Amino acid sequence: MSIVKSKAPAYIPSIIPSSDTDMFQKKGGMGMRMGFGRKPALLNVDVTKGFVEKRFDLSCGKAGEKCVQQILRLLQKARRKKLPIFYSRNYPRFGAEAGRWPDKGTGSSKSTLMRTEEAHTIVPEIAPKPGECVITKSKPSAFFGTQLVSLLNYFPIDTLIVTGLVTSGCVRATVVDAFSYNYRVIVPIECVADRGQVSHEVSLFDMDMKYADVIPLADVLCYLAGLRG
Amino acid sequence: MSIVKSKAPAYIPSIIPSSDTDMFQKKGGMGMRMGFGRKPALLNVDVTKGFVEKRFDLSCGKAGEKCVQQILRLLQKARRKKLPIFYSRNYPRFGAEAGRWPDKGTGSSKSTLMRTEEAHTIVPEIAPKPGECVITKSKPSAFFGTQLVSLLNYFPIDTLIVTGLVTSGCVRATVVDAFSYNYRVIVPIECVADRGQVSHEVSLFDMDMKYADVIPLADVLCYLAGLRG
Amino acid sequence: MSIVKSKAPAYIPSIIPSSDTDMFQKKGGMGMRMGFGRKPALLNVDVTKGFVEKRFDLSCGKAGEKCVQQILRLLQKARRKKLPIFYSRNYPRFGAEAGRWPDKGTGSSKSTLMRTEEAHTIVPEIAPKPGECVITKSKPSAFFGTQLVSLLNYFPIDTLIVTGLVTSGCVRATVVDAFSYNYRVIVPIECVADRGQVSHEVSLFDMDMKYADVIPLADVLCYLAGLRG
Amino acid sequence: MSIVKSKAPAYIPSIIPSSDTDMFQKKGGMGMRMGFGRKPALLNVDVTKGFVEKRFDLSCGKAGEKCVQQILRLLQKARRKKLPIFYSRNYPRFGAEAGRWPDKGTGSSKSTLMRTEEAHTIVPEIAPKPGECVITKSKPSAFFGTQLVSLLNYFPIDTLIVTGLVTSGCVRATVVDAFSYNYRVIVPIECVADRGQVSHEVSLFDMDMKYADVIPLADVLCYLAGLRG
Repeated sequence: MSIVKSKAPAYIPSIIPSSDTDMFQKKGGMGMRMGFGRKPALLNVDVTKGFVEKRFDLSCGKAGEKCVQQILRLLQKARRKKLPIFYSRNYPRFGAEAGRWPDKGTGSSKSTLMRTEEAHTIVPEIAPKPGECVITKSKPSAFFGTQLVSLLNYFPIDTLIVTGLVTSGCVRATVVDAFSYNYRVIVPIECVADRGQVSHEVSLFDMDMKYADVIPLADVLCYLAGLRG
Repeated sequence: MSIVKSKAPAYIPSIIPSSDTDMFQKKGGMGMRMGFGRKPALLNVDVTKGFVEKRFDLSCGKAGEKCVQQILRLLQKARRKKLPIFYSRNYPRFGAEAGRWPDKGTGSSKSTLMRTEEAHTIVPEIAPKPGECVITKSKPSAFFGTQLVSLLNYFPIDTLIVTGLVTSGCVRATVVDAFSYNYRVIVPIECVADRGQVSHEVSLFDMDMKYADVIPLADVLCYLAGLRG
Repeated sequence: MSIVKSKAPAYIPSIIPSSDTDMFQKKGGMGMRMGFGRKPALLNVDVTKGFVEKRFDLSCGKAGEKCVQQILRLLQKARRKKLPIFYSRNYPRFGAEAGRWPDKGTGSSKSTLMRTEEAHTIVPEIAPKPGECVITKSKPSAFFGTQLVSLLNYFPIDTLIVTGLVTSGCVRATVVDAFSYNYRVIVPIECVADRGQVSHEVSLFDMDMKYADVIPLADVLCYLAGLRG
Repeated sequence: MSIVKSKAPAYIPSIIPSSDTDMFQKKGGMGMRMGFGRKPALLNVDVTKGFVEKRFDLSCGKAGEKCVQQILRLLQKARRKKLPIFYSRNYPRFGAEAGRWPDKGTGSSKSTLMRTEEAHTIVPEIAPKPGECVITKSKPSAFFGTQLVSLLNYFPIDTLIVTGLVTSGCVRATVVDAFSYNYRVIVPIECVADRGQVSHEVSLFDMDMKYADVIPLADVLCYLAGLRG
C-alpha cells in the first residue's frame, strides 16, 4: 500500500526551546510523518455550544469560532468524498455518572449553564446529517466507554482525521487512543482550538512528535481531493 | 467517606500567561483538589533504563536520574504501608506489534539500543520485589491493552499515585485513563520527568487543571504516613 | 477480609451427563464457590419490554415474566441495603451502529416492533428510581463500549450480582466480563431467563463451573440481610 | 462489497428441542449467515499443551487432538494465502494476576502441572512461525486486556476466523468480543473442541444463532481458495 505523506515540517511552536526540540527530533528521531492510508474517516470532537459560544464558561472564545469555520470546510469536502463522519459530545451527568470531573471543578462553575443539554449540542454550522454518527461520551477520549472502535471497524477505516475542542483535552486524549488503536492519525492545525494558548501550542507539538501528523488543513484537503470517491 | 486533600496551590508554571490561567481557573472553575481516598496504590510508569540512562537516545537525562531518587523515597514508604505496587514497561516489538511508533520515528533512532530488552528493564534502584506486579504494555497508557484495571479491581483501590517517565507521554496518557476509570489520581511533582522542559511543565499544568492532583511529594508522604497500615 | 460463601452445590442440570461433570469438577477441580465480598452492587441486564412481553418477537415468554417477579424481590432488598443499582438496556440502532446484529438476523424479524424505543424500555415492575444508573449499550455485554467499569470503580464495589435476560446472551457476556474485571460475580438462579430452555440451563452450568456463583436467590437475600447498611 | 456466504444450514445439535429452535429461528429470525468479508485473519485460541495433551487436568482429550489436526489444515491454507495469523495463550499467574480463576477452582487442580510454563506452550503441530503474533492473555477472551484489536486494526481486517479450545470458554468469549467489535466472525466446526460434549454443542448453537457463522471447515477452505493472495 502506498502511503501519502504531507511534506509539512514538524509543528514547532516558538515557545519550545531548541534544547527541547534537539532531544525529541535530533536525539530521539521523533516527529516523522506517519502519512495517510486509503480509508479515512472524520471525527469532530466536542464541537458543542458550551465549548464554542462565549456565553458558556468553558468556551474557547474567538479561537473556537474560527475553528468551526475551518472544520466546516473539511466537513464539506469529506461529505463530498463520502467519508464515514463521526461526532462526539458530552452530556450533563450527575453523581457516579459525572465521575471525577466535579472533583477537579470542571463543569461545576458558578453558572449552571454548562449542565444544560444545550451546552452539549453540536453547533448548528456543522450539525450532523442523517447517517452521520454522534457518539455520546463522558470522559476525555471519544474512545473511552463508547462504541467508537466498533464503529470504525464496521467500515473498516485505517486513517482518522481528528478535529475539535479542546486541543489539550478531549482532542489529545482521543488522538492518543487512536494512535494506540493503530490508526493513522491526522490533526489539521486550523481545525482544533483550546481555551489556553500555551496548552494548545504544546499539545500540538507533543502530538506531532509522537502520535499524529499535525499538518495544515490544506494538506488534508489535498489528500481528500486525490481519493477515489 | 472523608477525603484527605492537599492544600498545595494549583501547579502553574511561569510559562503559562495569566490570560490562560484566568480561562481555566477563574472562568472555568478548574484545578480544584480531588483528594486522596482510602485505598491507594502506587504505579511507576516506564522507569526503565532506556528512559533514564544517558547512553540511550530516549533518555530524560539528569531530570530522569533525579526523579528516580524521589520515586525511591515514595516507594519505600509505600512498601512500609503495604500498598499494592505496580510498574509498567514497554518491550521491543516489531511489525504489527510495534504499531504506529516507528511511523512517527519513536524508537527507530539511529542506534538500535532502544530495541534491546535491556532498554526496557526497570532501573535497579527501584527494581520490583516479589509480589509487585510488572505490566508490559505497548502503547502510551499503562491501561491500554493491559490487565491493569482488573489488577486494581482485585484489591480494590480507589486512589492511584502515578510516577515515572515521561510526563507528557506515558505518564499523562496513564493519568487520563486513570481519571476516566474514576480513580482519584495523584501525581507527585518530583516523581515525574520528561525529555523536554516545556512539555513537562505544561503537561503538569494541564493534568492539574483537569485530571489529577499535581502536588509536592511531601504531601503524598504525609498522607501515606496517616494511613492505617 | 472474610468472604461469605453460599453452601449451595454446583448447578448441574439433568441435561449434563456425568462424563461431562467428571471432566469439569473431578478432573478439572472447577465449580468451586467464589463467595461474596463486602461491597456488592446489583446489575439488572436488559429487563426490557421486548425481552419480557409476549407481543415482542424476542420475548422470553412465561420464563421472563416469572423472572421479573424474582428480580423485584432482590431489588427491594438491595434498595433497602442501599446498594448501588444499575440497569442495562439496548436501543434501536441502524447502519454501523447496529453492527453485526442484523447480519445474524437478530432484531430484523418480520415485525418492526423490536426496533421501537418501547421495546427497549425497562419493564414498569422494576422501573429505575432516581439515582439508579441506566446504561445504554449496543452489544451483548453491559461492559462493552460503556462506562460500567468506571461507574463500579466510583464506589468502588468488589461484588457484582447479575440478573436479567437472556441467560445465554447478554447475561452471560456480562458475567464473563465481570469475571475478567476481577469482580466476585453472583447469578441468582431465579433472576435470569432465556428464550431457549437448553441454552438457559447449559449457560448456568458453564457460568457456575468457571465464572460466577450460580446460586439460589434465597442465598443472595440472606447475604444481603447480613450486610451492614 | 460483495459478501461471500456459506450455504450451510444453521448448526442445530440434536440436544436442542424444536420448541427452542422455533423461538430462536422462526420467531426471532436469528441464525442467518453473516458471511465473509475481504480481509480475513486467523486466530487460534489457546491451542496449548495443557488443553490438548491427556496428561494435563484441563485437557480436552481425544476431541482436542482431532481438533489440532483440522486447525493444521486451515493454518496451512491461511499461510499460503498470506493471512495475518494470531495465536492466544494463557500463562501461569499468581495472586492478583491470577484474578478470580483460583476462586472458582480452575487451574488449582490437585496436580500443579497446569501451573507450569509448558502447559501454556502452543502444541508443536501448529507452532507459530516467525512473523505470526502470539498474544498472552489472562482472561477468557483473547481481546480482554490485550493488544488484539490494535493488531487487527493494523492491517486492517474485517473477518476473523476463530479456532481452538475450549468452545464454551475462551473460544466463545473471544467470539462474543469479535462480534462486539463488528468483525465478521467465522467458527469452523471441526476446529474447536471442549472438555464437555454438551457445553461444546450448545455453545456452537448459541454462537451460530447470534454471533458467528458456525460452518464446516470445507466452506472456510473454499472461501480462502477463492481469495486473491
